Amino acid sequence: MADKKTKILVVNDDGISAPGIRHLIKLMTQLGDVTVVAPEGPQSGMGHAITLNSTLRCDQVKTYEGPQIEYACSGTPVDCVKLAVNSILEEKPDLVVSGINHGANHSINVIYSGTMSAAVEGAMEGIPSIGFSLLDYSRDADFSICDEYILQIAEQAIKNGMPKGVCLNVNFPVVKKEDIKGVRICRQALANWEEEFDERIDPSGRTYYWLTGTFKNFDAGEDTDVWALENNFVSVVPVQFDMTAHHAMAQINQWQV
Amino acid sequence: MADKKTKILVVNDDGISAPGIRHLIKLMTQLGDVTVVAPEGPQSGMGHAITLNSTLRCDQVKTYEGPQIEYACSGTPVDCVKLAVNSILEEKPDLVVSGINHGANHSINVIYSGTMSAAVEGAMEGIPSIGFSLLDYSRDADFSICDEYILQIAEQAIKNGMPKGVCLNVNFPVVKKEDIKGVRICRQALANWEEEFDERIDPSGRTYYWLTGTFKNFDAGEDTDVWALENNFVSVVPVQFDMTAHHAMAQINQWQV
Repeated sequence: MADKKTKILVVNDDGISAPGIRHLIKLMTQLGDVTVVAPEGPQSGMGHAITLNSTLRCDQVKTYEGPQIEYACSGTPVDCVKLAVNSILEEKPDLVVSGINHGANHSINVIYSGTMSAAVEGAMEGIPSIGFSLLDYSRDADFSICDEYILQIAEQAIKNGMPKGVCLNVNFPVVKKEDIKGVRICRQALANWEEEFDERIDPSGRTYYWLTGTFKNFDAGEDTDVWALENNFVSVVPVQFDMTAHHAMAQINQWQV
Repeated sequence: MADKKTKILVVNDDGISAPGIRHLIKLMTQLGDVTVVAPEGPQSGMGHAITLNSTLRCDQVKTYEGPQIEYACSGTPVDCVKLAVNSILEEKPDLVVSGINHGANHSINVIYSGTMSAAVEGAMEGIPSIGFSLLDYSRDADFSICDEYILQIAEQAIKNGMPKGVCLNVNFPVVKKEDIKGVRICRQALANWEEEFDERIDPSGRTYYWLTGTFKNFDAGEDTDVWALENNFVSVVPVQFDMTAHHAMAQINQWQV
């Protein structure tokens, strides 16, 4: 068990009232002093968005039983981390945990996910940071299958720190606890969404759209997060914010400009 | 000069009425058939956000003189690319260009930037994609210093294609055209923002915040985009959407979980 003085920041993108964050708060209060700074409502798919063109609200609330201190913020998940680290907390936390997300953040979803962007922002601040997601979108999902793994991974992050500029993207398959085969350190699968815009007509006759899509995995590798999850492993992908395609520099250098 | 049948999609994050996109549209009509799908208003700092929790509008408009076809979209820059590719255009364009952004998108800004996220989304669709930014935030910035470079880089992208899973992040220094020393292929500098939240009290007595910050470069390398721009070069960073920290996998594999 980690030192009770460990400071833990809990964030998410489903909003402070989502069952997933309630579950994560309960787990984290076993490991340290918890402060929650979470969006007041759903912020799924907000990626690394920050609020530049409008103002932010951030008010102390009490949503759940327990010793944690809670704030609800009008902004994005990344806003929550920035506000927590730069304005609310007296010192940088020892750990940032984000989630538990309702739904998959494996493979390319990492780039759209507010849950994971909050963890990436934590890494940018030099704080060991982890995003947790369960591949179950329902509000009554059984998060308890994650408990043992979340506690172990969080404790290891507190104890070992994190490689510089790196956070972790942890996803859980939807299986019974006893059917989880263990943990796999993976790379992000090469996958994508095939969008289909659902085009509709509003009551006044104007066209509008809903974004929908189908997830397509193009990656047959057995070292990917998609493979791990399909085979009942917990997937752990180390994620970085250096987006430079170092391997492509030589090729672009051959261009005539 | 490229084939007139070349299909080019123009997007941005400052909104369809921003001078930067007007300039980019003019340039691109010299290279091919241009379709513009841009946010109806400012979407700076929206990163890779997509609109999941509400509906989208996308209406044909005519904002500028010229042969281009234009749409204004209520969503984010990434929504614009998805709508264009999956709903508006009959076939995938040969090139996606985003910008010209009013302000810097070098180094860590790539992760917050709607301009660059639109280019990354283009790369995810397998389309050669480039984001252009000028390090001048004013609305009367002189974009003409970029002309020759934008045309050359866009032509090379049309001719050579792009390495798989890669787009380009092109930034221009604020100097006279004749003082630009050339183009440098760079890596993303290790830098960050030090946030300061400007805390204020609204007329009804409640606290609110404005996000402000100072850009801090921690990277002394002469192979970075920040260095290139400070030394009057045009910086070109190849950017990828595989965020896996491959170098960190061995270290995380040593954890006891």
